[in-house]
Amino acid sequence: MILVMKNNISDAELGSVVQEIENAGLHTHISKGEEVTIVGLVGDKSKIDVTSLEANPSVEKVLQVTESYKLANKKFHPDPTGFAVKNTYIGPGTMTVMSGPCAVESEEQLLTIARAVKAEGATILRGGAYKPRTSPYSFQGLEEDGLRYMQTASKETGLATICEVTSAHAVESAYKYVDMLQVGARNMQNFELLKEVGKTNMPVLLKRGLCATIDEWLNAAEYIMAGGNEKVALCERGIRTYETSTRNTLDLSAVCVLKERTHLPVIVDPSHATGVRAYVEPLAKAAIACGADGLMIEVHNDPAHALSDGPQSLDFDQFHSVMTDLKPYISLANRTLA
Amino acid sequence: MILVMKNNISDAELGSVVQEIENAGLHTHISKGEEVTIVGLVGDKSKIDVTSLEANPSVEKVLQVTESYKLANKKFHPDPTGFAVKNTYIGPGTMTVMSGPCAVESEEQLLTIARAVKAEGATILRGGAYKPRTSPYSFQGLEEDGLRYMQTASKETGLATICEVTSAHAVESAYKYVDMLQVGARNMQNFELLKEVGKTNMPVLLKRGLCATIDEWLNAAEYIMAGGNEKVALCERGIRTYETSTRNTLDLSAVCVLKERTHLPVIVDPSHATGVRAYVEPLAKAAIACGADGLMIEVHNDPAHALSDGPQSLDFDQFHSVMTDLKPYISLANRTLA
Amino acid sequence: MILVMKNNISDAELGSVVQEIENAGLHTHISKGEEVTIVGLVGDKSKIDVTSLEANPSVEKVLQVTESYKLANKKFHPDPTGFAVKNTYIGPGTMTVMSGPCAVESEEQLLTIARAVKAEGATILRGGAYKPRTSPYSFQGLEEDGLRYMQTASKETGLATICEVTSAHAVESAYKYVDMLQVGARNMQNFELLKEVGKTNMPVLLKRGLCATIDEWLNAAEYIMAGGNEKVALCERGIRTYETSTRNTLDLSAVCVLKERTHLPVIVDPSHATGVRAYVEPLAKAAIACGADGLMIEVHNDPAHALSDGPQSLDFDQFHSVMTDLKPYISLANRTLA
Amino acid sequence: MILVMKNNISDAELGSVVQEIENAGLHTHISKGEEVTIVGLVGDKSKIDVTSLEANPSVEKVLQVTESYKLANKKFHPDPTGFAVKNTYIGPGTMTVMSGPCAVESEEQLLTIARAVKAEGATILRGGAYKPRTSPYSFQGLEEDGLRYMQTASKETGLATICEVTSAHAVESAYKYVDMLQVGARNMQNFELLKEVGKTNMPVLLKRGLCATIDEWLNAAEYIMAGGNEKVALCERGIRTYETSTRNTLDLSAVCVLKERTHLPVIVDPSHATGVRAYVEPLAKAAIACGADGLMIEVHNDPAHALSDGPQSLDFDQFHSVMTDLKPYISLANRTLA
Repeated sequence: MILVMKNNISDAELGSVVQEIENAGLHTHISKGEEVTIVGLVGDKSKIDVTSLEANPSVEKVLQVTESYKLANKKFHPDPTGFAVKNTYIGPGTMTVMSGPCAVESEEQLLTIARAVKAEGATILRGGAYKPRTSPYSFQGLEEDGLRYMQTASKETGLATICEVTSAHAVESAYKYVDMLQVGARNMQNFELLKEVGKTNMPVLLKRGLCATIDEWLNAAEYIMAGGNEKVALCERGIRTYETSTRNTLDLSAVCVLKERTHLPVIVDPSHATGVRAYVEPLAKAAIACGADGLMIEVHNDPAHALSDGPQSLDFDQFHSVMTDLKPYISLANRTLA
Repeated sequence: MILVMKNNISDAELGSVVQEIENAGLHTHISKGEEVTIVGLVGDKSKIDVTSLEANPSVEKVLQVTESYKLANKKFHPDPTGFAVKNTYIGPGTMTVMSGPCAVESEEQLLTIARAVKAEGATILRGGAYKPRTSPYSFQGLEEDGLRYMQTASKETGLATICEVTSAHAVESAYKYVDMLQVGARNMQNFELLKEVGKTNMPVLLKRGLCATIDEWLNAAEYIMAGGNEKVALCERGIRTYETSTRNTLDLSAVCVLKERTHLPVIVDPSHATGVRAYVEPLAKAAIACGADGLMIEVHNDPAHALSDGPQSLDFDQFHSVMTDLKPYISLANRTLA
Repeated sequence: MILVMKNNISDAELGSVVQEIENAGLHTHISKGEEVTIVGLVGDKSKIDVTSLEANPSVEKVLQVTESYKLANKKFHPDPTGFAVKNTYIGPGTMTVMSGPCAVESEEQLLTIARAVKAEGATILRGGAYKPRTSPYSFQGLEEDGLRYMQTASKETGLATICEVTSAHAVESAYKYVDMLQVGARNMQNFELLKEVGKTNMPVLLKRGLCATIDEWLNAAEYIMAGGNEKVALCERGIRTYETSTRNTLDLSAVCVLKERTHLPVIVDPSHATGVRAYVEPLAKAAIACGADGLMIEVHNDPAHALSDGPQSLDFDQFHSVMTDLKPYISLANRTLA
Repeated sequence: MILVMKNNISDAELGSVVQEIENAGLHTHISKGEEVTIVGLVGDKSKIDVTSLEANPSVEKVLQVTESYKLANKKFHPDPTGFAVKNTYIGPGTMTVMSGPCAVESEEQLLTIARAVKAEGATILRGGAYKPRTSPYSFQGLEEDGLRYMQTASKETGLATICEVTSAHAVESAYKYVDMLQVGARNMQNFELLKEVGKTNMPVLLKRGLCATIDEWLNAAEYIMAGGNEKVALCERGIRTYETSTRNTLDLSAVCVLKERTHLPVIVDPSHATGVRAYVEPLAKAAIACGADGLMIEVHNDPAHALSDGPQSLDFDQFHSVMTDLKPYISLANRTLA
């Protein structure tokens, strides 16, 4: 941590800041330039509160040079993490495809879709039972019934299942029925929810918040991991920008940044990122090409009548075509379908 | 709702879309231009799902012309809303000042601050007991102890109190001790939490999400109101943009937009918006000048040693000076301190 | 300037970086922490190229602690700058109102508007003769004819005049006819244009680019000043964000930041920032309240038939009402109409 | 074009708007819903000004349903465009690699780099002679000398050359020495410059503005094409967002959107988009995978001593490795190196 001091502070003021830092058990290095004086902090920074330093009237700004996340940090865990989800796997060497409808609508619908996505090589069935919707008057999901249908579909097809959780109560229910928990973009900084999923031993897919920085995202992962659950995969699903041609702006450079900063696996969701069916295939290829460990792709038996997110869902023929076209890209990336 | 149809669809395809809409009990108006064909929908739009229309292969886009929020909508409730919070008031004609520390640190600290802010004209004491922090290793708040200190401070000073809630459990606890609940920016689309506060009869301050549109924000208010609790005030606290000179970008035009679209009162928080103490006064003046009904201002007995958000907190002398300077602006806006 | 070195670099690598810096005539301070090593640079940083340091494989990042703009920097020119524009003034103690149509449409129209805005207290007539329009098929301005009408209106009313320039050629023409040059948002980083206006001795209004940071904006002002022209005023006119309720997001905290970093006067344009007539008055009040030195407000004799930006233009009655309501705010800010 | 009328306007007010439209020679379709009345316009919309409609007090909003760009529009030119640049080609079936230093520094340096990039398969040599730099005190380029070195390098290697132009004067000079003109991000809406390059018959690379929407970008291309020069390629180089881990956020979904809206070729520049050398290769692969027609990649003989943008430049070994790894992706996309 580095303090840039205000211009023209007195030696006494500088001394007082230094004293405060050393009282906390840290050491300081002082560098006086013509224009500014810099104080470097050496030692265990957890002993000192950064906001108290920022608030000090002698300090112009505080520059952080090390990350606050530790368990998620590649510096301390250089090897990439992988983990099983039921009988499939997320991690190095594999490409894990999670597919299914945005919302579970009925048992019949879900089974039809489950069979179709399995046939194409998906190994995790996705389906929303608790739907966070912008308006309270939109369809909110089938809740526990939806979870039960997920379990049935899993039993019949052998697919692993993933379901979004939106409250402590939903975590408790989902834990009984599915194989992986999803924390959605709107809840990425719902820290109470992160703590709840961190108490379970179930794999978690943590979607990036709509305007979360990569550092905030890794700190959110750290909340889960600090609770004892280290099976976290990160899902890039588009960020909010000024551009409205796509629903969000898929940030594929985030995949590269994550691969440098964390050992956790990275999934890309081109369906939610763009909101446009036709862009799913080219961006899925791009995601594979730049290092993603998996894809989340929405598939629906009848997109024109989907209760949620129809415009971005693929029908079965389209999904077949997409998966066929993705295969050479998966090989080229030295991966195999999970 | 208006459908812009794809170029070159056949009459049969157009007819099929029209049929589907009319089957749902709505009427259509068709307008064929040289370049595009438009279908207008007339009737109860809640009978038809917009995403299913968007997903229809004959439809290029769906344009919404009416808002999905009703209870929060000024069109249906033209008069501005006001409500009591304990013995103070938020609404037309008044300027309500909510002040106090970012985080409650001790009973002693809170009492000291409560007395100071009351002396300057604040009528609501703010103080965080559950702190949503980016890193799991930062101070997370005193929780129920913090709430108890809030109650004590209220009893001693007569101030009303407001506290952020971050889970259903926190709602339950806070309800016992404080007079107003705050939903923070990171939880603005934590719909389960919105439903929980909607079940209470306690005034709610709903902060704008870091990258929430005004429409999403009003829909979040609608979640609370749809649960039966119509005492909602909206708090603008800065949005996330590319500019890093201030922590967030305070969007004061949002105050003007809200005054046009909703009857709910609007509070402005220049402390969190900018993260810089020196900007609090000029932007508080600006907020009053453009129509705000209240202000949230962080005050701390010793900002340089605050456990959270010190750099933006005013000390008692600074708060005295700010309140003194604000008074003529409050008068000019035809308001009186609550 | 501070270098954060990569983890685990050897002493030889560190030494080599230090050598390179010292060869350029600067001194270094080295601070070795447990996690990172920091190198502080002392001396004339213009002797060393920052990008070459960033590119060095031993360097993780370069932190700049001093600003690259000097002439615009308040640190070196603590007193606020003011300057005359014809017979009016922009600077401390005054509130300068620049009003007129978005585009000059005819001599008759311009004279009508000039008389009306003068009657209300505006002292600078604005009017576009070269219009930067998104589509090449939109009205592009009357060019030199428009400038001539500006001159005529100035002669008749005594108002000073300002006109946007979009090329070296336009600078040359405008210089002959008007009293102040405007560089528009889309050209804020058209450095060749900045150099051209920097060669004149005419006051310049430099609008903020649509996504320019405050530092980039001050560096753009530095381009003009480095050419010898120090009569620069900065105009906040809204930045591009994800929010679409207003055309842009007016960043009033930028006024506060500028007042801290630069001695140059600051103008606010609520008309272009919001694109909505009804928001002009409340945001003009807010701009005055937070420290602006002037306002740019669009006024049109017949907004419903304006060739450009009608929705945000005030008609004469509305402008009268706005100016009347602004007066007590101007007094409260200890300013007088220029 | 569709007008959404204000609530509760009278029949007379509606009639007056309709009359105005029909006077301009267009037809109207009126659709009265329970909540809103909609007026659709049929006919030649260039006869009527949209802003005058938006300014009409009876109109709530104007919804555009057709694009303002025509020559760049795929609807009217469904086949993809390709064109020669000297003896190479940009367009369908090929992958054109443009490489070289950010700034031309010396003849010697440029020749060394030209030979190296040619050996790896690049066919266009890039190099800046006019550098738009944020600070007036940074290196501004060698100007005409730089152009001359480009010509020499072209003569020796046979490579085509591209150079950024920043003024009418630079266009005139560059036209004499190089084979393709580049309009940089900061000048994307410098309409006077667009008109200048539109008057030449030389291929143009139009980079996306830092916060330009795709529609604004296509309208900027339209400016060039409307001048008679239809040889325009678009270059995605990252947009400005809140995320600071990369210099900009590379928007690869823009490639997909462009492929749907325009027939013009699309180039991707991962070097400028990210500012980080290590991200160039994965994002170049991703660009190829999602449909790009070419790549712009910065290469420097000695990145650690580059005068501009060293951190993102590849050295010769790195460029060799990147080009080797890209080849199977180029094949998979059914393209061959130009």
